[in-house]
Amino acid sequence: MTHSLSIQPQRLADALLALGRIGSYLDEGSGLWGVSRLALTAADGEGRHHVIAKMQALGLQITTDRIGNVYARRRGREDSLAPVMMGSHIDSVPTAGRFDGCLGVLGALEIIETLDAAQHWTRRPIVVAFFTEEEGARFGTDMLGSAVATGRIPIEEAYALHDRAGLTVAEELRQLGFLGEAEEHLPPPHAYLECHIEQGPVLRRRGFDVGVVTGVQAISWHEVTIVGRSAHAGTTPMELRADASVAASRINLYLRELATSGRFGPQQRATMGAMSPTPGLVNIVPGRMVVTVDLRNPDDAQMRAAEAAVIAFYAQVATEEGVQISWRQTARTSCVPFDGGIQAAIAAAASRRGLSQLSMVSGAGHDAQEWARVTRAAMVFVPGEYDGISHNPREFSTVEQCANGVNVMLDVLLELAEES
Amino acid sequence: MTHSLSIQPQRLADALLALGRIGSYLDEGSGLWGVSRLALTAADGEGRHHVIAKMQALGLQITTDRIGNVYARRRGREDSLAPVMMGSHIDSVPTAGRFDGCLGVLGALEIIETLDAAQHWTRRPIVVAFFTEEEGARFGTDMLGSAVATGRIPIEEAYALHDRAGLTVAEELRQLGFLGEAEEHLPPPHAYLECHIEQGPVLRRRGFDVGVVTGVQAISWHEVTIVGRSAHAGTTPMELRADASVAASRINLYLRELATSGRFGPQQRATMGAMSPTPGLVNIVPGRMVVTVDLRNPDDAQMRAAEAAVIAFYAQVATEEGVQISWRQTARTSCVPFDGGIQAAIAAAASRRGLSQLSMVSGAGHDAQEWARVTRAAMVFVPGEYDGISHNPREFSTVEQCANGVNVMLDVLLELAEES
Repeated sequence: MTHSLSIQPQRLADALLALGRIGSYLDEGSGLWGVSRLALTAADGEGRHHVIAKMQALGLQITTDRIGNVYARRRGREDSLAPVMMGSHIDSVPTAGRFDGCLGVLGALEIIETLDAAQHWTRRPIVVAFFTEEEGARFGTDMLGSAVATGRIPIEEAYALHDRAGLTVAEELRQLGFLGEAEEHLPPPHAYLECHIEQGPVLRRRGFDVGVVTGVQAISWHEVTIVGRSAHAGTTPMELRADASVAASRINLYLRELATSGRFGPQQRATMGAMSPTPGLVNIVPGRMVVTVDLRNPDDAQMRAAEAAVIAFYAQVATEEGVQISWRQTARTSCVPFDGGIQAAIAAAASRRGLSQLSMVSGAGHDAQEWARVTRAAMVFVPGEYDGISHNPREFSTVEQCANGVNVMLDVLLELAEES
Repeated sequence: MTHSLSIQPQRLADALLALGRIGSYLDEGSGLWGVSRLALTAADGEGRHHVIAKMQALGLQITTDRIGNVYARRRGREDSLAPVMMGSHIDSVPTAGRFDGCLGVLGALEIIETLDAAQHWTRRPIVVAFFTEEEGARFGTDMLGSAVATGRIPIEEAYALHDRAGLTVAEELRQLGFLGEAEEHLPPPHAYLECHIEQGPVLRRRGFDVGVVTGVQAISWHEVTIVGRSAHAGTTPMELRADASVAASRINLYLRELATSGRFGPQQRATMGAMSPTPGLVNIVPGRMVVTVDLRNPDDAQMRAAEAAVIAFYAQVATEEGVQISWRQTARTSCVPFDGGIQAAIAAAASRRGLSQLSMVSGAGHDAQEWARVTRAAMVFVPGEYDGISHNPREFSTVEQCANGVNVMLDVLLELAEES
């Protein structure tokens, strides 16, 4: 049985700690050590060399492609077959913890070390990969490396992206020594697996050990500008106001009603994350307000219906409040379903290990959604403490939580790697 | 009859233009010239010397008191009687027009010039005054000069106030040459009159020529801090959120409901002028939000009831949304009623001149509210174009609108100045 092999949990935890020291900083608010490894910075370069050294120590064959993605290959018994790929990212947002992305990469290497120790050779080769600029926190486009590798984004377009200082991806790859020579478009792997922290509260709150990810939900972002009339808070009667903040508040409460009503399915989410009134003074009725709307739904048709409802409500509020409301789409992605067969294999593997599992959609974007376009792909989620807080130094999953997810990935990898 | 005298409208308009050139700046957004004469700056000093030169040209007896208030006295037929005072201010906010305050001061001087031309001598002496730092825009306390003169604020407390650069009122008075020697507490004048722009839309929208101000309403400001939980907008189910922005939006809509319900009288006003979410990003549920609440009511008992209702609603929202809500009082003043007899005189004078008038409460604070503590006081309001926009370069009242208000003040002055 495949589950006769298990990883060494503490070795994985130690590996996460070691990588987490690179680009670390002391968060003064919490007293915790955070991680800041923006893509293609010196800290990211140090992290890359650290992980590559581990790959080399495991005897893997390392390739860097033209967008800086790094692939480490372990030979298979039938080495000409397409490999099973495990991947994620090691770049971070500026205020990160040490698990986001790193768990998938270091977990995959822990699996390799476990297979080596057992002298277990799979039929198909195995590739462990980390991808450039998954976060989008430096150059503005997330999943950049995997999107280039799988053909969604042309490499010349990726090269031209620049950070706030005007430095381009191409320049920074060259500067850091990660402008590889390998063609960025690979023959599709046999399958793609990714283990990742959930980055949300569901698994931990509901007491599940692992999440079987059914796909990545659709995302729609609006920037909404409301223009009313600035007015003196003391002298302007309520009935003569055109208060942009009242219009914004009505939209915000409508978003929650929309998401909780069930009209757009049980998993509609809606958030007003930014609210910026002008002039923003205690005694002035705001004449202008810019707010953001974030809609998520795991069903494309429901998402389209929710978007239409929100847009209709903008018009209704504009009429009722005597304000002008304009909006622009700042992001829009469709749903990405993951492979049903691999989901079933993940669920079965978890059951064999006595782990409780929950099928759930991913609220965040991941490299796996890019690979799902070119091969069978799936993800295993690991619970996070503190309501699954992420992109924050408090981000934390226990040794056992991490090991559970990686062991399930190990089991599924071994199945996939034996397929003909 | 007293209304056989009338001011020269164009002379008043020219005087407003001339004073408005001092401390002027080009507002790039509107292309209009604005006024920036923060109290006790060089621009304010230039404005003071400009107005004092006009007072001297009219042969008035000029006194500067220890807080920099300037009084210009015209003798009466019975010169030992208490004077009738007309006053306002010439300091401004940093983004002002040329009417706020200046209309009251220059209008009073126009009245003096009109009386001089008619060789009309009143029984009582007349005093025209301008007061230091009415706006509170530099040293943080509004109505400062008149509050010191009428005893609400001790002069040593006023002297110690400082601006953001740490410069104190005492130092800046001395530096500017306006640390006068006159005792700041005067014997109460017989009455106090002030003509001021409305700074709101009511008179213009409803088509009234002048406002008879019944008093200054009570003001209560809260700074409200809402603490929920920051969370990923994509991964956090709606039912597991503690969204500070939703709590803030509910409070904002409650404020409007409270003000329009009639439960706290017909003139309750409520405004959320500032809303500041943390972290304020499109894809993060705000974990913290600081908002401001501005309540106004012309009735003290209704104001207390409205405050209690708002505070109870904070607690209700905190419970219902699973957030913590704390608040602090950042300003609180009670209602100041103006003298009923002078209000009747204003209304009668307007009627004699064929002007339509509306009795209305002042939404903003004015020097007159300080003088109301020590003598009979009242105000005449003048309509403003563009919805009465104020504290803005667009602030504008027509020559006729200004002249109407000042002529009514002239008529009432002549009545009061003949009283025994």
